[in-house]
Amino acid sequence: MAEDATGLAEERCVACRRDSPRVEPEEAAALIGQIPGWTIVQRDGMPRLERTYKFGDYPAALRFVQRVGELSEREGHHPVMEVRPRRVTVWWWTHAIKNLHRNDFVMAAKTDALADAG
Amino acid sequence: MAEDATGLAEERCVACRRDSPRVEPEEAAALIGQIPGWTIVQRDGMPRLERTYKFGDYPAALRFVQRVGELSEREGHHPVMEVRPRRVTVWWWTHAIKNLHRNDFVMAAKTDALADAG
Repeated sequence: MAEDATGLAEERCVACRRDSPRVEPEEAAALIGQIPGWTIVQRDGMPRLERTYKFGDYPAALRFVQRVGELSEREGHHPVMEVRPRRVTVWWWTHAIKNLHRNDFVMAAKTDALADAG
Repeated sequence: MAEDATGLAEERCVACRRDSPRVEPEEAAALIGQIPGWTIVQRDGMPRLERTYKFGDYPAALRFVQRVGELSEREGHHPVMEVRPRRVTVWWWTHAIKNLHRNDFVMAAKTDALADAG
């Protein structure tokens, strides 16, 4: 199992059903260490991964939203995004299990890679 | 002054400064009648126009976000958007006056026109 952020970003999402395993607190602590900049927040009674990215201009923010959208369509796992002028917040969680799945950490790492790509 | 939604959508945004006039309640009531589907909500102590659009699939939602983004860049007035799978919520308000400006109703009507364009 990959133990650095690059490895996490290279994993693929696995199909997720209602009986899929949630990430246990100990594993979550280890995984969050691989994606600095992300925090676990509670919203609507479910934990979510959250990160806000800043951009130099609005078109750059729009391009990022588009790339994250295309990634999520390829992986079959979609985030919620809030798009503001020059700021985009992304939340990952797994609705089917109302919790965090390993997929969410994988997607967070992949999202970072898209932001780094500029 | 245009008195139907088509007319509102055809107006351009005017430059907005801190001393620009907010829309008074009576005018707001008349303008909101021209953009059915939009409601005025309070958030962070400021009134905003809010509408949620639904889409048949995720790529359609993404295309809409892109089009609204391009429109807002052209007009120099940017919304906040929340992008979910197959649902996009758009908020328009004018931060400079912490209130609603006629621009916001114009942009709401233009946003509707983009959604109708499919």
